[in-house]
Amino acid sequence: MDGMSRSRPRILFTLGDVAGVGPEVLVKAWPELVALCRPVVVGDRAWVRRALELVGAPFEIATVKTPDEAHGLPGVIDALADRWIDLSTVVPCAVSAAAGRAAFDFLVHAINLTRAGLADAIVTLPLHKEGLYAAGLPYPGHTEILADKTGVRHYAMMLYARGPSVPHGLGVVHVTLHMALRRVFEHVTTPAITEKIHLLDGVMRKLCAGKQPRLAVAALNPHASDGGLFGDEERTIIAPAVAEAREEGIDVTGPLPADTLFVQAQRGAFDGVVAMYHDQGHIALKLLSGLRAVNVTLGLPIVRTSVAHGTAYDIAWKGIADQGSVIEAARVAAQLAGVRMKNEEGRMQNEE
Amino acid sequence: MDGMSRSRPRILFTLGDVAGVGPEVLVKAWPELVALCRPVVVGDRAWVRRALELVGAPFEIATVKTPDEAHGLPGVIDALADRWIDLSTVVPCAVSAAAGRAAFDFLVHAINLTRAGLADAIVTLPLHKEGLYAAGLPYPGHTEILADKTGVRHYAMMLYARGPSVPHGLGVVHVTLHMALRRVFEHVTTPAITEKIHLLDGVMRKLCAGKQPRLAVAALNPHASDGGLFGDEERTIIAPAVAEAREEGIDVTGPLPADTLFVQAQRGAFDGVVAMYHDQGHIALKLLSGLRAVNVTLGLPIVRTSVAHGTAYDIAWKGIADQGSVIEAARVAAQLAGVRMKNEEGRMQNEE
Repeated sequence: MDGMSRSRPRILFTLGDVAGVGPEVLVKAWPELVALCRPVVVGDRAWVRRALELVGAPFEIATVKTPDEAHGLPGVIDALADRWIDLSTVVPCAVSAAAGRAAFDFLVHAINLTRAGLADAIVTLPLHKEGLYAAGLPYPGHTEILADKTGVRHYAMMLYARGPSVPHGLGVVHVTLHMALRRVFEHVTTPAITEKIHLLDGVMRKLCAGKQPRLAVAALNPHASDGGLFGDEERTIIAPAVAEAREEGIDVTGPLPADTLFVQAQRGAFDGVVAMYHDQGHIALKLLSGLRAVNVTLGLPIVRTSVAHGTAYDIAWKGIADQGSVIEAARVAAQLAGVRMKNEEGRMQNEE
Repeated sequence: MDGMSRSRPRILFTLGDVAGVGPEVLVKAWPELVALCRPVVVGDRAWVRRALELVGAPFEIATVKTPDEAHGLPGVIDALADRWIDLSTVVPCAVSAAAGRAAFDFLVHAINLTRAGLADAIVTLPLHKEGLYAAGLPYPGHTEILADKTGVRHYAMMLYARGPSVPHGLGVVHVTLHMALRRVFEHVTTPAITEKIHLLDGVMRKLCAGKQPRLAVAALNPHASDGGLFGDEERTIIAPAVAEAREEGIDVTGPLPADTLFVQAQRGAFDGVVAMYHDQGHIALKLLSGLRAVNVTLGLPIVRTSVAHGTAYDIAWKGIADQGSVIEAARVAAQLAGVRMKNEEGRMQNEE
């Protein structure tokens, strides 16, 4: 294996729903992506060309058969040569079955290539849930497709931010996510919290460059129930999960009142937080990251990160979408893929 | 009435639980308080002296019979001449019935003076709920005492922040507050939300210096339920309250997903937010204010603000507590009292 060409991980960028902001943020980010990895687009090349025209970027599009053929140059967008379903009738900023179907196909192809060892990581650009539905695909989003196609049952979505407000980097995993707030209580269980602590500890070890990550678990109730005055889940459900993880040697504290926990995290006290429900983690991380957060799927056999925003039909195809999140997603994917590649190299050398 | 002496409002600072950070943040803040108002301490003078010794401030303590006698000088701490229960045996950083009882007495006296027209506003330093309990006083905190003693049933606590992250100022009112998260659903009702919108609009008109405040109402469920996929309170409960307020001419929008709402607020899109539950508002405002938030009690016949932090026994009496919140609390109280005084002067002139 050629050590030089492997020094930058091969990362597949799935184009997502072409009617959204995916194509334009990808081409805007391209020169910075090339500095981080060898990026390869998995998606419709006509819509990439359209995005180049939109933002006025003078880049070429090169078709490659495999990620190893990628040029990795700032002025050349490498895209897989595969053909996809016809997207010529898709209208920007509108839901369509065709764009939904294609977003699914891009992702499945990227999963297969990565599992076959032909790529090192996947960064997904946003798709639209209603497009998937329109195409008859019963998935709420990317993450569930990834879990299904890789046969994984225990996984989690981590929001990760690094930036002026959190220079040390902060990851937030959620025990529950896309459900009504009143359904949260039946899903907040000791085993579910324990599992999330383990997943968070595992990924943060990679992102903290070998240092033991410092984790905190948020309370469910205000003031962490104030000693039982406002609920008891802290004592009966959350504290046992924290105690168990500590016995296993994980550096984790909690349950802590969520409002002060995130201020402490902002000041650098923690590398990772387990939040109990969607808004608890998302309010904090979006404020800390200025919307440049990254999603990282934990528990998969492959590395996958994602922009934290959606298709943003309301601002798509105007050339105004911000590419910060896709650059961050690529940076985190490259870091995680780098750790994995190093481990694999180590294994291979040991086997020699 | 002497116009010059009335130009700075007379603000009573209740000392709260003397075992906590109240006395030290008060004396640290004193020179800045004098620039904002005519501050008068309602509390035990021996503990104020102890705080002066702790922080090494060379200020005198002057006893005054009424707030009108206050000197309003940076080097002179004006304190009411009243005598309180014996606090000489109270131990710093520990709960005691005596400190709890005294905190209650300071507040009740301040309420009476303000209602009698002898002061223009109250700023409360923190008390400890367990101290109140130990003294046999069945109140969860300051706000409930204020409501009880002024005979008010419809009131709300607003967290308010102004600073580098929110230079325009942002107020957050909560529909529910100190209760278990699973109890929130029975208290989130259309009338409760309508009431909070009205209270928020009223106070923000004063804090926005006459401009019509731009308000937003947070959703209860993630993604504002994503069109009904995760719950229906947005459609059935929150939207009707927003519609009703809009018909009355209030500039209010929502329900909006809480995570993106606060990012928009951070960018200046809103002056006030109605949050559905404690952590939803507190996570955002504490991150935005860096813990220098201010509590404002809405719906009272008197002006009352408070520091947003507690007694902080863990760091009290070490001289390290930050006085930022009490300065902010004084600034907001002075602004609200100023509007009230102006309105009263207007009324008096009309009556002449």
